[in-house]
Formats: sequence, structure tokens, C-alpha cells
Amino acid sequence: MDEMKVFAPATVANLSCGFDVLGCCLDTVGDEMKISKNDLGQVRITKITGQDLPMEADNNVAGVAVKALLKDLKSGQGFDIEIDKRIKPGSGIGSSAASSAGAVFAVNRLLGEPYTSKELISFAMQGEFLASGNAHADNVAPALLGGFSLVRSYCPLEVLSLPVPSELRMVVLHPLIEIKTRDSRSIIKQNISLKSAINQWGNLGALVSALYTEDYDLLGRSLKDEIVEPVRSILIPYFNELDKLSKKNGALGFGISGSGPSVFALCRGDENAENVKAAIQDYYSKKEINFELHLSGINKSGVRII
Amino acid sequence: MDEMKVFAPATVANLSCGFDVLGCCLDTVGDEMKISKNDLGQVRITKITGQDLPMEADNNVAGVAVKALLKDLKSGQGFDIEIDKRIKPGSGIGSSAASSAGAVFAVNRLLGEPYTSKELISFAMQGEFLASGNAHADNVAPALLGGFSLVRSYCPLEVLSLPVPSELRMVVLHPLIEIKTRDSRSIIKQNISLKSAINQWGNLGALVSALYTEDYDLLGRSLKDEIVEPVRSILIPYFNELDKLSKKNGALGFGISGSGPSVFALCRGDENAENVKAAIQDYYSKKEINFELHLSGINKSGVRII
Repeated sequence: MDEMKVFAPATVANLSCGFDVLGCCLDTVGDEMKISKNDLGQVRITKITGQDLPMEADNNVAGVAVKALLKDLKSGQGFDIEIDKRIKPGSGIGSSAASSAGAVFAVNRLLGEPYTSKELISFAMQGEFLASGNAHADNVAPALLGGFSLVRSYCPLEVLSLPVPSELRMVVLHPLIEIKTRDSRSIIKQNISLKSAINQWGNLGALVSALYTEDYDLLGRSLKDEIVEPVRSILIPYFNELDKLSKKNGALGFGISGSGPSVFALCRGDENAENVKAAIQDYYSKKEINFELHLSGINKSGVRII
Repeated sequence: MDEMKVFAPATVANLSCGFDVLGCCLDTVGDEMKISKNDLGQVRITKITGQDLPMEADNNVAGVAVKALLKDLKSGQGFDIEIDKRIKPGSGIGSSAASSAGAVFAVNRLLGEPYTSKELISFAMQGEFLASGNAHADNVAPALLGGFSLVRSYCPLEVLSLPVPSELRMVVLHPLIEIKTRDSRSIIKQNISLKSAINQWGNLGALVSALYTEDYDLLGRSLKDEIVEPVRSILIPYFNELDKLSKKNGALGFGISGSGPSVFALCRGDENAENVKAAIQDYYSKKEINFELHLSGINKSGVRII
């Protein structure tokens, strides 16, 4: 096989209490990429549609991720990468992660799968480093593995896949204002109170338990974040109103997707998710901000061949 | 029924990454208590053997816990409480929690079970408040519920029971030096770095996952605490040596039990636990400190009638 087309999914990282360690993969939102072998021994970004992004491989997250893989493999194979970018950069739903993950997934397949999906994570993280100055894994891991990913440790890297309760749905609102991950990280306090941290890890432990037991109400009660959300939510227009509105319409929980400005409402079942989506649509349409609104199931398999 | 004898188990709280939210219940270490109705309308501590502890109900954790229950129930029933105290106070394996939990368990049964086991936790916490100035639940919850308990939230109180992998064993060393919970809490820093907190909640999430999947190795890797252990371990003689020794002999993980000075080695299977116990016995026997050493399975049911 010399070329491959893949769907590279969007992801919701952090999920409130899981700041920097948890993420999940979306089903209906993502980029399409075409990766082809070339005979030039070079990694090239040959086409980008949908967004204006760097064409130089060393300045493009997909290029950087693929180069990291090829370097580790000591492979001289060249690749051409085409990206149909449907996830907006700076949206907070893993735009850079989708490109990095999609690219290393396809290259790995085209080379006969020298790496497992988990092994690909560290290469895709190099793309994240380029994008945000921080090689975080909580978007690229779920983009590659699907479902919910928990980053237990960065050094050494250890990522766990957690179960996906079948009725979970995500409503994601992307207000069309740009917040750079780098900027959104800089406002977070680097020291926190032990008390808040204890609440946070109590909630994260409960959230993990809820995924195993399919306890949707517990999942909702666990989606709390008293550390990062109070700071970052200030940057997101009408955050508190959206939170209340979503829960009033039956969402299990509500929070910031990644570093924002996207926000997510976690819902149980299609009907509930449709209600929440309609309420947000109605509310935000009356505001002065353009937006995109998605409804998605949880994607259990991650990047896929199309 | 007018009287009842119960076994009130010792418990290991915190379990490294689960500071203040996690605890588990031991099988072979605990107090025995006899609780009898009296016609005086008073709660009395009528006998304490094994240790020198307050006989006034208002100064005794069991008395305080029972009074909290009776007040909530608006019951005028009196009770006599006898305690055969086998868990040394200040040991770090839930000595006060055992008395509080055992007493409220028995009184609840003698009154026809007006409360569920989970509802009893808040009464037993009043005993913890008397003992340490902090109404924590991470000992009383596993003492009452058995197995592993996770405190998701204190306000409102929500405690989850987590699964118990069947081969888990605990080796507990109690160096006979006294550290008051109150003092041991006071040396903990009230502000911590966000980076450490992220590592901690990543590990706690993984630990919860490991309990569900019976992944013993993951359980071991998750038993890390870079927040409280580095401070508290200074108070425990030969902590680092014991840590290394336990792991060298095959323990999954090692940490401080509660606020210390007891330490625990979590092991897989009896043979492994016997090896770790023998190695600790041999090592500590050569030191100048008296000690007690326990090997126990995980008690899945908590306080029990004997």
C-alpha cells in the first residue's frame, strides 16, 4: 500500500477534574488526511484545505510528528501529507492533535505497523510541543486510541484506556474566538491549595469508577474542576450561563474542552443531547458571537481509515 | 436483641496517591467491642481493656459517635460500650475509626437498622473529629463498608465502594513510636505545585482503574505520593530502606498508612506477602525500635458481628 486516507478525530481533553491527564475522542468531528509515500526521502505537506496552516514540514504539527516517527525508526522513506482541515485551530478540541495523530497513524500503517497505537502517542506529542510549547498527551492519546484515555505518567509515558458507557454523548460549542493553548496555559496558577487538589483527585477517582460502572449520574457529579475552570472560564463568553442552561436541560455535566474556548456538555442518550444542543443553539444565536455546535458520540477506535 | 459483640477492623487510609480520599479495610487486625442496651438513657463506656483511654463518653470516640447517631435519630435509648482495644492509638491504622465504626454499627443493629452502612459514616466521623480535630472519612468509611472506599466529596458526603482484587495482601509495620494525627497533619504544606497535583490525580485515576481490572502491576505503579509522603516519611524511622526492601522482596507498592508511623506494603498473594513480612521482620529486628508486624487480606465486609 502506498497511500491512505484517514479520518482524524477531534478530542475533548481535561474533562474538568482530569486536567492534563484525561481526554476522550469524538465521533463526528474531525479532519480528513491523505498520506502517500514519495520517492524523495522527504516529508512534505503537499496540500492543506480548510485552514491557512504552515506548509513547511518542520513548522507543521503533522510533519513534525511524522519526522519524529521516521527518526526513531531510522527510516529514510518520504511521505506526502494532504490535510483537509475541518477542525479549526485554537478551538480547544484537539485540532493539532488530530493532524499529528492522523499522520503518524497513516505512516505507521503504510510502513507495516512497526509501532503499536500506544507507541505512536509519543511521536504525535512532538506535534503538540510544536503547537503549544507543551508535549501533552491528553488529546493525541484519545485521538489514537479512541474512547477515554488517562495519562498516568509522562516519564515514563503510560496511558490507560478506560471503558466508554454506551449512551454517552457530547455537545460541543465552539465560540469563534481564538484562545491559544499557550496563552490559556499561562493564566493558570502554578501553585494550588492542597484542599482543592484533594477535591479534584476525589472527583477524578469517582469519574474513573463511573466509567467502569456506567454510573451516569456519578459521572455528572464528578465533572467538577475548582482549580483551572474558575480561571479559564473567564475567557469564555457566557460560560456560567451555558453551564446552568445545559444542566437545566438535562446535561450530566459541563466544562471547558481542553484549553477552550470550546465547552462541552456531557449527556446521556441522543434525545437528551439533542435537547441540550437545541437550548445552546437558541441561547447563543442571540449573542454577538459566531459559533459552531457539534453533537457527537464517543469514538471508541480513534483515527480510522476511510 | 439487647447486646452484640463486634469485630472492629483496622484500616489503611490514604494509600499514597489517595491522600484524604482513599482507604481500605484489614481482615486480621482489629478491636473487639461489646455493646449493650441499658435502661439509664445514657451512653456509657463501661470497660476498656488493652489500652488506657478516656472512660467519659464525651471524651471517647465511640461514645461521641454513638451520641451523634442517637441525637440524629432522636432516640433516648442508653448503651453500655466495652472496648477490648487491640489497635494501638496513634498507630496510623485507624484505631479511633475502628472504635467509632464498631460502636455505631452495633448500636444501629440493636436499634433495628434505622441507617444504612453508608449513613453511619457521618456519625463515625464525629469520633474522628474528636480524635484528630478533623472529621475525615477515609478510615471510618472502609471500616464500615469493607474493601476500598473512595471519598468523592465531603459536602455533601459521598463515598464509593471500589472492587477488591482477590489476591491483594497488606503487610503493615507499626514502629512503636507515637505520632499524633494532629501533629502529622500540621507538617503538611497547605499549598502544592500544580505539577505534583496532576501527577497525583493521574496516579489515583490509574489506581481506581487497576482495582476494576485487577491489574496488580498497575496498582503498584500507581502507589506514588510526591506530595505528602516526602514530608511525613521523615518522621518514620528507616522509611526509605523499608520501601526499597519491600519492593526488592516483591511488594507491589509501599507507603505510609494514614498519618503514620505505620507503613504498608501492598502484595500479591500469600507467598509474596510472607516474603515481604519476613524481610521486614529481619531488618527491623536489628534496629533499636520496638514494633508490631501484621499480615492481612482485605476485609470485604467491614465491621462484623462475632
